[in-house]
Amino acid sequence: MSEILESYAGGRWVAGTGEGREVRDAVTGETVTRVSSEGIDLGGVVAHAKAKGGPSLRAMTFPERAAALKAAAGAVQAGKDRLYELSAQAGCTARDAAVDVDGGIGTAMVYSSLGRKGLPDGTVIVEDDFIQLGKEGVFGGRHVLTSPHGLSLQINAFNFPVWGMLEKLAPALLAGVPTIVKPATPTAHIAVEAVRMMIESGALPEGALQIVAGSIPGLFDELGGQDHIGFTGSADTAAMLRGDAAVTRRSAHFNAEADSLNASVLGPDAVPGEPEFDLFVKALVTEMTVKAGQKCTAIRRALVPAAQMDAVAEAVAARLGGIGIGAPGAEGVRMGALVGTDQRDDVRAAAARIAQAGQIVYGDLERVDVIGADADKGAFMSPVLVRVDDADRAEPHEVEAFGPVSSLIGYRDVEHAVELLARGEGSLAGSVVSADADFVTDVIAGAAPFHGRILVLDRDSAPESTGHGTPMPQLVHGGPGRAGGGQEEGGLRAVHAHLQRTAIQGSPAVLGRLGE
Amino acid sequence: MSEILESYAGGRWVAGTGEGREVRDAVTGETVTRVSSEGIDLGGVVAHAKAKGGPSLRAMTFPERAAALKAAAGAVQAGKDRLYELSAQAGCTARDAAVDVDGGIGTAMVYSSLGRKGLPDGTVIVEDDFIQLGKEGVFGGRHVLTSPHGLSLQINAFNFPVWGMLEKLAPALLAGVPTIVKPATPTAHIAVEAVRMMIESGALPEGALQIVAGSIPGLFDELGGQDHIGFTGSADTAAMLRGDAAVTRRSAHFNAEADSLNASVLGPDAVPGEPEFDLFVKALVTEMTVKAGQKCTAIRRALVPAAQMDAVAEAVAARLGGIGIGAPGAEGVRMGALVGTDQRDDVRAAAARIAQAGQIVYGDLERVDVIGADADKGAFMSPVLVRVDDADRAEPHEVEAFGPVSSLIGYRDVEHAVELLARGEGSLAGSVVSADADFVTDVIAGAAPFHGRILVLDRDSAPESTGHGTPMPQLVHGGPGRAGGGQEEGGLRAVHAHLQRTAIQGSPAVLGRLGE
Repeated sequence: MSEILESYAGGRWVAGTGEGREVRDAVTGETVTRVSSEGIDLGGVVAHAKAKGGPSLRAMTFPERAAALKAAAGAVQAGKDRLYELSAQAGCTARDAAVDVDGGIGTAMVYSSLGRKGLPDGTVIVEDDFIQLGKEGVFGGRHVLTSPHGLSLQINAFNFPVWGMLEKLAPALLAGVPTIVKPATPTAHIAVEAVRMMIESGALPEGALQIVAGSIPGLFDELGGQDHIGFTGSADTAAMLRGDAAVTRRSAHFNAEADSLNASVLGPDAVPGEPEFDLFVKALVTEMTVKAGQKCTAIRRALVPAAQMDAVAEAVAARLGGIGIGAPGAEGVRMGALVGTDQRDDVRAAAARIAQAGQIVYGDLERVDVIGADADKGAFMSPVLVRVDDADRAEPHEVEAFGPVSSLIGYRDVEHAVELLARGEGSLAGSVVSADADFVTDVIAGAAPFHGRILVLDRDSAPESTGHGTPMPQLVHGGPGRAGGGQEEGGLRAVHAHLQRTAIQGSPAVLGRLGE
Repeated sequence: MSEILESYAGGRWVAGTGEGREVRDAVTGETVTRVSSEGIDLGGVVAHAKAKGGPSLRAMTFPERAAALKAAAGAVQAGKDRLYELSAQAGCTARDAAVDVDGGIGTAMVYSSLGRKGLPDGTVIVEDDFIQLGKEGVFGGRHVLTSPHGLSLQINAFNFPVWGMLEKLAPALLAGVPTIVKPATPTAHIAVEAVRMMIESGALPEGALQIVAGSIPGLFDELGGQDHIGFTGSADTAAMLRGDAAVTRRSAHFNAEADSLNASVLGPDAVPGEPEFDLFVKALVTEMTVKAGQKCTAIRRALVPAAQMDAVAEAVAARLGGIGIGAPGAEGVRMGALVGTDQRDDVRAAAARIAQAGQIVYGDLERVDVIGADADKGAFMSPVLVRVDDADRAEPHEVEAFGPVSSLIGYRDVEHAVELLARGEGSLAGSVVSADADFVTDVIAGAAPFHGRILVLDRDSAPESTGHGTPMPQLVHGGPGRAGGGQEEGGLRAVHAHLQRTAIQGSPAVLGRLGE
């Protein structure tokens, strides 16, 4: 039996006890590790963060924290190869691993830079100049942002063990808030490995970063108004956690990033032969196949003018046909495995539900040809494109198949397209692929209230566009409604969100001393 | 039997059916009105807001909304005398009514001005310049803030029927979001009267403002990610509402302002004879007696250097002794009644619990002399000061007596004072009364993470200081933890909080058109 994965808890590496939950190689089905938090003193983890990590971080200035973050990210950079190896066992090709590992390191580096350039050389942010509150000017107000005396608990999804951790760690660290990471079990070992690199580098003060692999029973009982919970995962789990007394009664901050039925719209101008038509097809295939579609921002709904349904279906199918599926690293493989066979079965079932609204025009739910692996042992599945001619059917707008599955839906006019975008009931990312300025403007105006991010793709921006599915540290990541209602990243906004804003009132002399 | 109070629902005035809940005059005990929402179509109220109010408001520019807000506030201003009369029946002196009525009108006027001067002549806020995301500059991002397609449900406390409504209405209106008001039953008739003035003025588009007096069963089932819930009231109710699926599952925004054990600290420099000593005593007595202490921001804990306990107790008692209690408007009355006898009984019980930690040094929980009224029929009680020499006792830091009750607690040094401030576990408002710059700086640094607002009071700012208990529209109102974890007001911050932030990515040409 393989060993239990260690956690870093209370200042030391410690393995949970018991049988643990088995993590299998996504490609071979062999056991990779076992995960258990049994016997780990979770109250001690919280106490360590608050007694040790918090005071140390709060004593550091913003530039000092930015430097520590850079050093920590540098340690992960140095150990990158090992993380790629582990990622391959989770089904990731090198391209997939880059999104997670390099994406995470890059995000941390951007935050370090934003912190160095955009935050004061001290521990307090003063937000505004003297706001006069009387006629003579002897009394007024200003706002300050200070570090809460709590911790940041991050609960991550399996798909981005490194990026998901670093994009939450970076703003918390800059804000002077210690972090406890609770990774998703299927990729907990990748997150633990990255934490080990950061801890061993000595970049961070003790207590600033801990990780608990496994469940965290009772940990919410220790959290309250000074604490921040950053959650990425399913809407069901989000609802359960957000209903905990830590949030509802003691007002712990809760940021959720949950399910999302993201859509991309092809403009009516973008007919075959126009560059935007090709950009749309290429982007859709990319989003379906990178990480085997296991991205919360992936395109689940492709909205195209009804007249272009055939042309798009054909072009997408042709492109998908050229994507080799199989063991990461094997010759010709462009798409790897899903994270596990349970996950694959869930995706198949969800795709079958969506298919009830139309017909599968590419792929097979049960069969897939794989390269360099055994299709029966690994968590492989074919990309699946479902054509839905009746756009009003509920399934494609409500069922998230968290894998290489998209639906192709025809729209009538811009109003219809906007209406369909809104039927996602809140999405992380939308996109519009068009060179028609009026169409683009109408889509943005109609769809913005339902989105956290909207990408406009055309021939001008294409050479540097980071794509539909890629959150950028400078821009907010998160969406309303079904997407969880949260906001992460957005540059320094995420740092501010971890700080407590306080209005200070008094004389100009008193207020002039703030932040000094 | 008196008539059922009308609600403004679905575009018409309509009274609920059934017996209703009786609202009694706080001074005479006579029935003032009855409140029931029975038979009112709450689904229709939501639909009216979304189908009628939302589109009308979203079609208006920010300056147009600011003008409408000003006109609505002007209508309340014109009907002020009537609101003072109704407030007197709820136990309010003219001074108390001014805090609510004039405070509410002033807040709306400030928001109208902020909206006119600080928001663009359009419907979209663009937050930043082009953020370059590539080397060549052909791709980048900007953030826009747009109006959600939902509504703002405001659930208010009984103590500020007008201010509480207008400070929530103002930012929602500017944000283009229609409002449904759910007033607290004991003062629902005052809120309804103010709404009637605004509706009859024709200042607002139809559907922009509705009010439902009485309970709102099932209304949360209609709310989701495009909606905002602004709650002011008890921590118990906040916890219950925040645990609803509208919030936990469908990600409706929830802003809570709940219980708060606000403290004021007397600096060690402020010995008897210094102006700050007198300022402290005067502020404490004001906070204990205005609105009979029924303010969420009132000083519940007076923290003074242990050596000054006698002097402060004596000075506060002397000043309280000069405050006449009785029917609002009667000669010599400075403090009116609590809102009702149930409320008075709750406050007496809470005060008795606090008194277990020390001794009552002013007032009597059972007896009070009143002017121009019958002490047995009206909801009167004496101000009560509880001296607590053992600062570590739990009661004064945990029990909120929502009336004219404060505890006087001795502290040892600045560290101890900061520790005691934090024992409120999150407060709306704190204050420090001192001319010692170092002491003030230390208190702010230590206490800011636990407060939404901190007032520094000294001889310099005193002439124009708005006082410990007065939220200002320009500054945030709300506090962490026990205080609910929310933020209202803060100038345009509250408008921004009602809008959806969306990152838009594309070419400089596309991003240059945003907001045009």
